[in-house]
Amino acid sequence: MSKIKLDQRFSPYQMPSVIIGTTIDDKPNFMLCTWASRVNRTPPIWMVSINRKHLTMNGIRDNGIFSMNFPSADLVEMTDYVGITSGRDADKSSVFKVFYGETKAPMIEECVLNMELEVEEIIERPDHFIILGRSVNTYADQQIMTDNKPDIRKMNQIVYTGAEGQPSYWVVGEKIGDAFSLGKKFK
Amino acid sequence: MSKIKLDQRFSPYQMPSVIIGTTIDDKPNFMLCTWASRVNRTPPIWMVSINRKHLTMNGIRDNGIFSMNFPSADLVEMTDYVGITSGRDADKSSVFKVFYGETKAPMIEECVLNMELEVEEIIERPDHFIILGRSVNTYADQQIMTDNKPDIRKMNQIVYTGAEGQPSYWVVGEKIGDAFSLGKKFK
Repeated sequence: MSKIKLDQRFSPYQMPSVIIGTTIDDKPNFMLCTWASRVNRTPPIWMVSINRKHLTMNGIRDNGIFSMNFPSADLVEMTDYVGITSGRDADKSSVFKVFYGETKAPMIEECVLNMELEVEEIIERPDHFIILGRSVNTYADQQIMTDNKPDIRKMNQIVYTGAEGQPSYWVVGEKIGDAFSLGKKFK
Repeated sequence: MSKIKLDQRFSPYQMPSVIIGTTIDDKPNFMLCTWASRVNRTPPIWMVSINRKHLTMNGIRDNGIFSMNFPSADLVEMTDYVGITSGRDADKSSVFKVFYGETKAPMIEECVLNMELEVEEIIERPDHFIILGRSVNTYADQQIMTDNKPDIRKMNQIVYTGAEGQPSYWVVGEKIGDAFSLGKKFK
């Protein structure tokens, strides 16, 4: 196999598409974030990495709370819209229906998975801030459940890829197999 | 839409499958990690979050370097194997063909995307360590390139999901559309 060096500005891998919810000037504001991951099991801690310039950082700093909302493929147009449109230029408070849980973090009713999080720590890097947040509650739509468990096929979440020249959205495809099981066949 | 609260131990979302490479007792060692994300553009910084108990943490601490390797779907059995088998119980140094770049981080020849990284910071959380690493070089297989750019379809990377009762592997499915473009249609 022949290896070549890649331009490191780009990220050609399978990322989640997550919409971050914050409150800015007393209104809900939303932005797309694809640099996101769980980082601790108990308690449930997550991280999102946000460009320093984004207005969302003001909402996160001012309130110490934010939400993570996972859209399904039918919301891809709105998902991209909140990714390319700054809250400085447009009022994004009415793009989605908003609901609240125990905190004041605005969550998106149309999204299949939602979390409301309290900021634990903000780590500075040259062009991004890494936000660590502890999830207070996680919500799912009743309609994506099968036998009382979230069903990945029904959730139909959006995969983002940052390949050079072709940043794009994809669906989760076919299931290959069960984790903690397939590897038992390997000798 | 009716929302219900979920058990927060589980993570029913679309994660990347990444194999972390380290050197333990002078031998390459590999483990599967699905809590991983890019966190800074320039320089290219990434994060992986690793359970405190994993042997891989020794290699990361001792050497200050590690690799991230993205397998394609045809490697799913070996990918799961290095996820369920500890380096304490088995020698995983010969599961894959190993190559090296500028650092001493072992990388996997069979994987479509590889990075060698220097540790910048280790952030402690109750059950995981969050490792921030600066990528020294990123490599791709020549055969996954189209017009000199990485081609997501050829890469065929594995999506992991941690849904309750059914942690599983999936392929990246069909393309929905171009990012920074679809949202222009939304009014």
